Amino acid sequence: MSETAVLRLGHRHARDRRVSTHLCLTARAFGADRVVFPELDDSIRDTVGDVVDRFGGSFRVEQRPDWRPLVREFPGPVLHLTMYGEPHTDVAAELGEGPVLLVVGAGKVPREVYELATRNVAVGHQPHSEIAALAALLDELEGPEALYAKREGAEVEIRPSGSGKDVRHPDRGDDPA
Amino acid sequence: MSETAVLRLGHRHARDRRVSTHLCLTARAFGADRVVFPELDDSIRDTVGDVVDRFGGSFRVEQRPDWRPLVREFPGPVLHLTMYGEPHTDVAAELGEGPVLLVVGAGKVPREVYELATRNVAVGHQPHSEIAALAALLDELEGPEALYAKREGAEVEIRPSGSGKDVRHPDRGDDPA
Repeated sequence: MSETAVLRLGHRHARDRRVSTHLCLTARAFGADRVVFPELDDSIRDTVGDVVDRFGGSFRVEQRPDWRPLVREFPGPVLHLTMYGEPHTDVAAELGEGPVLLVVGAGKVPREVYELATRNVAVGHQPHSEIAALAALLDELEGPEALYAKREGAEVEIRPSGSGKDVRHPDRGDDPA
Repeated sequence: MSETAVLRLGHRHARDRRVSTHLCLTARAFGADRVVFPELDDSIRDTVGDVVDRFGGSFRVEQRPDWRPLVREFPGPVLHLTMYGEPHTDVAAELGEGPVLLVVGAGKVPREVYELATRNVAVGHQPHSEIAALAALLDELEGPEALYAKREGAEVEIRPSGSGKDVRHPDRGDDPA
């Protein structure tokens, strides 16, 4: 399996905490392996860690103060999400297999990101949300299989239900979902 | 064209403002026609109104203190987004043409929503973000055509660009995108 990594730039402490937490959980749910922050809030690390502990898998968040070497040395295409880029459906159709790094800004990103990226990728050319953009691009790259994949080591598994909540605890002897 | 409406339940003033703003802009970008709140922050109305003024189209946000008649009388299926529901790809494949109402909670929703909804729909069974869930479901229902559709009356249009920003102002005589 090739790695799918996300670099979150421009996160502002406190102000962006909830949006960045949503972004991390979206990355995890849609099949990314990790999200890297230049500066990582403890509260994001804790919230994401709790979800991984309960729902399984090996997703992680990391801090890397100097993000440029990650972008320059990444062993695959670096896709910078921006409403000014090329349509995501076109870019996804042209990508082969292999590792990919998605760069997601909060507000404005340094101009050099446009130059360092392999491709600048738009999920529509309307202003919306980096969370939605990441979800749509990962969905295009990883497919719904990633979203519905079973996670290893889950304490909690949820089964589809038409009318309520069907929650299983495999480690307590429940049937696995 | 059939209507696609979104009902946002459980929005908490101030605390959810940014997430609900992202949600509204995501709804607009991915092809919904309106988002209804039982109680609507002025700041959300203003931010969304500014985007519609600049980027065009007829998307709107509305306040409707009693949301139950909207759900009960809606002339099409009511899809409640919840991680406990049925896979979104299955539900989308079974839906015909026509109007649809998507119900999106912030945190817990009243139990009756599970009963009032035509279908409870999961976008994966992992905890993530209602913004991502709405984006993925709208993408499945509306297709990328909605995301890339030209908006009527736009002051600003963005053209795809591999390396920078290509912003047009049709009302100033720029070539339309």
